[in-house]
Amino acid sequence: MVSSDRESVTAALVVIGDEVLSGRTKDRNIGFVAERMTEIGVELREVRVVSDDTDAIVEAVNALRARYDHVFTTGGIGPTHDDITADSIAQAFGVPIDVDPRAVALLKERIAEADLNEARLRMARIPQGADLIPNEVSKAPGFSIGNVHVMAGVPTIMQAMLWALIPKLETGVRIMSRSLSAGVKEGDLAGPLRALDEAYPTVAMGSYPSWDEETGFTTTVVLRGRDAAVLDEAENKAREMLESIAVTG
Amino acid sequence: MVSSDRESVTAALVVIGDEVLSGRTKDRNIGFVAERMTEIGVELREVRVVSDDTDAIVEAVNALRARYDHVFTTGGIGPTHDDITADSIAQAFGVPIDVDPRAVALLKERIAEADLNEARLRMARIPQGADLIPNEVSKAPGFSIGNVHVMAGVPTIMQAMLWALIPKLETGVRIMSRSLSAGVKEGDLAGPLRALDEAYPTVAMGSYPSWDEETGFTTTVVLRGRDAAVLDEAENKAREMLESIAVTG
Repeated sequence: MVSSDRESVTAALVVIGDEVLSGRTKDRNIGFVAERMTEIGVELREVRVVSDDTDAIVEAVNALRARYDHVFTTGGIGPTHDDITADSIAQAFGVPIDVDPRAVALLKERIAEADLNEARLRMARIPQGADLIPNEVSKAPGFSIGNVHVMAGVPTIMQAMLWALIPKLETGVRIMSRSLSAGVKEGDLAGPLRALDEAYPTVAMGSYPSWDEETGFTTTVVLRGRDAAVLDEAENKAREMLESIAVTG
Repeated sequence: MVSSDRESVTAALVVIGDEVLSGRTKDRNIGFVAERMTEIGVELREVRVVSDDTDAIVEAVNALRARYDHVFTTGGIGPTHDDITADSIAQAFGVPIDVDPRAVALLKERIAEADLNEARLRMARIPQGADLIPNEVSKAPGFSIGNVHVMAGVPTIMQAMLWALIPKLETGVRIMSRSLSAGVKEGDLAGPLRALDEAYPTVAMGSYPSWDEETGFTTTVVLRGRDAAVLDEAENKAREMLESIAVTG
């Protein structure tokens, strides 16, 4: 990772695929990218899921690459006619795209020359000026162009690509978080939590209710910040606050 | 459901929550909304995940409500200071917002008057002109204003709200889908599948590879369309195509 002096380095993710929007496939990439970004000190600020449509991909990528430090995409880089991500990215950047000899060389490590048909060569189409992102799972590479990182949709392959990419990403100061299980209802802690949130402007505080038929409602309070000492102090105050509510409530 | 003569009725979803973007919570609402929309003949065209930030919510909701027939939101309608969805929606529509007596009446079915503090009354803040969306799980209502439907983030509550909402939604002609398990690799079926896709312009065809360490790669071909007879014919052709590849491959 390329640590920067900047406190905040931001990212967005574009998930490309009709199969996610139809509900046929349940996305597993958003959560994985989100967790890795949090670990390395990059703030994932926005995710968009768009269909296999060139205009939709171009619009989302161009809107997000202007606004965030890194943009990741997942999906649509396979060999079939609905795999249009690489061509859409070339269009978004206004650069030519063609079969890239570096990508062909990677494919040949896995695929016999006789099987390297026109469809499979689609997987070697890379926009001009892009760097390849290797993956050991399928060999077919992703690529980075500008601040946009194009990865596969199959989770195991996407994960291999993201691990390959992470050492090269600019990162910020890692955000730490503390979770407190609150033995009280959200409506009882909301007032005191708001007061605490205002007292610690560098600590973001949230409360997350969950519910299931067996245990009923529970609430988790999460504090997030970049300064461990301030976070420790806020955590202690939050713990005292929750205990006092539990006693009086 | 309010069936319409229109073939295509569209929708978008805005998932609101820092906890999804940080990876702490794994979203389970996208898949549920996607499946229900497919079932009732509404095309989910786009999903955005945005943070607990008024500007981000207003921008996403205004962009999407201008473009799609229905917009759903999930998250941010609880009692705490980071629950800002209702106020953000009022801002997006440029209407006033206040504690709504209809919503207070619903809360009183579950919460004792003495416990109905300022924080809990936040859950009764409803933009002027909105209709309530009831839910039997927590009683705290969602609401619909214009073509925007605001629901809870907790999956069980969101699901109760969506079931309450579905009978009122305008829907289109249901899209049917057929899945074929392809015993061949995606790179071998890509060429013939493209030809088939071109021969059936009203049937959308996709192929979805999956991979795990035990079974290696598998491919599923999915055909989607609104005309059962055409879909049957395309499915038969696709089956023949896959069999011929398996024999010669």
